[in-house]
Amino acid sequence: MNKDKIREIVEEMVKKSLKKSNMVPIAASNRHIHLSPEHVERLFGRGYELTKLKDLSQPNQFAAKETVTLIGPKGKIANVRVLGPARGITQVEVSLFDGFTLGVMPPIRISGDIKGSETITIQGPRGQLTIREGLICAARHIHMHTSDGETFGVQDGDLVQVKVDGFRGVIFSNVLIRVSPKYKLEMHIDLDEANAAGIKNGQLGEIIAAKSPNQVGGE
Amino acid sequence: MNKDKIREIVEEMVKKSLKKSNMVPIAASNRHIHLSPEHVERLFGRGYELTKLKDLSQPNQFAAKETVTLIGPKGKIANVRVLGPARGITQVEVSLFDGFTLGVMPPIRISGDIKGSETITIQGPRGQLTIREGLICAARHIHMHTSDGETFGVQDGDLVQVKVDGFRGVIFSNVLIRVSPKYKLEMHIDLDEANAAGIKNGQLGEIIAAKSPNQVGGE
Repeated sequence: MNKDKIREIVEEMVKKSLKKSNMVPIAASNRHIHLSPEHVERLFGRGYELTKLKDLSQPNQFAAKETVTLIGPKGKIANVRVLGPARGITQVEVSLFDGFTLGVMPPIRISGDIKGSETITIQGPRGQLTIREGLICAARHIHMHTSDGETFGVQDGDLVQVKVDGFRGVIFSNVLIRVSPKYKLEMHIDLDEANAAGIKNGQLGEIIAAKSPNQVGGE
Repeated sequence: MNKDKIREIVEEMVKKSLKKSNMVPIAASNRHIHLSPEHVERLFGRGYELTKLKDLSQPNQFAAKETVTLIGPKGKIANVRVLGPARGITQVEVSLFDGFTLGVMPPIRISGDIKGSETITIQGPRGQLTIREGLICAARHIHMHTSDGETFGVQDGDLVQVKVDGFRGVIFSNVLIRVSPKYKLEMHIDLDEANAAGIKNGQLGEIIAAKSPNQVGGE
């Protein structure tokens, strides 16, 4: 039996035991930016295409080698990672702490919901642009495959509570469930949330309660 | 009836209604430093005394006009507020995010418990010094007067859970109760925790459960 086969079996076993206990792996997202194909060209030059640095946990998503600088009314943040592939609309995800540094107040939003969100200036090596809206602080959420949704008994759009143990333990309310055949099981929080809960990479959280999705889209 | 008398009556009414509902006002502490009298002189000059900028919520405590710069192996943080009055041992309180900026990992500690905590260099206008230990990330806690302890039914050293509402709501576990006749009712968290829970200044939290104090002093 080769290494790949063994890894596959182990991964399957871990996945099954996680589901039994309602546990989800947690990943902290640092500030990052998704760029439209048009904005890639305006920031990096005509005909430019993003280059992969490494794969992310969600299928087909990658961290690009490229970075940009964010410029707000009060400050700049350099070396902000571009995620690929390029997609429809440019969206910048930062923490509230980053918002203080930049001098803007990003609303807490579900990825993709950028209407009326904050404006920000983005600087690349070959150009600079200002988006009127698109700067958000991503609402905490759990990506899961359609089969995970069935196992956990939750649906896309549900809001659940997730418990994190430890001396700095917290229970996160209003964690949005996002179900898709394209997703892989993982909870995403930002660095403020990871620090507040003292979360180490790879730590697990436990879904302890589901509640009705009556607050989606709030800020 | 004069304004002071009205304020006193209103404060007393608010205090009473808060206690009835197990609510506590929450304040987010930004990074700050407590200095020993000796270190005040080494950083600001011989015979120097701290000057009050404004009173803090806890009786006799004040934010001083003076600030220092923290210097870690990876970065500096300027304009760190000195709190007064000068007291026994120098202690620096930062967030985990600040720890990343400085390049050190402050342990989560109860104020005063600095044994084996992180080293940091402190720069003032007239001198610079390095403390071998004293850099911590303050464990979340609730100051309360002895009479509050009786009303809430908790004792000094207890760990409770505090619920914060809102779209970014959380329940904080292991919130340390600190009771003293010198304290005034207020929960203290750091900026990471305030951001993670989307807490606005003056927001209230609710003590929802007490648990045995079996984890005090952990990290």
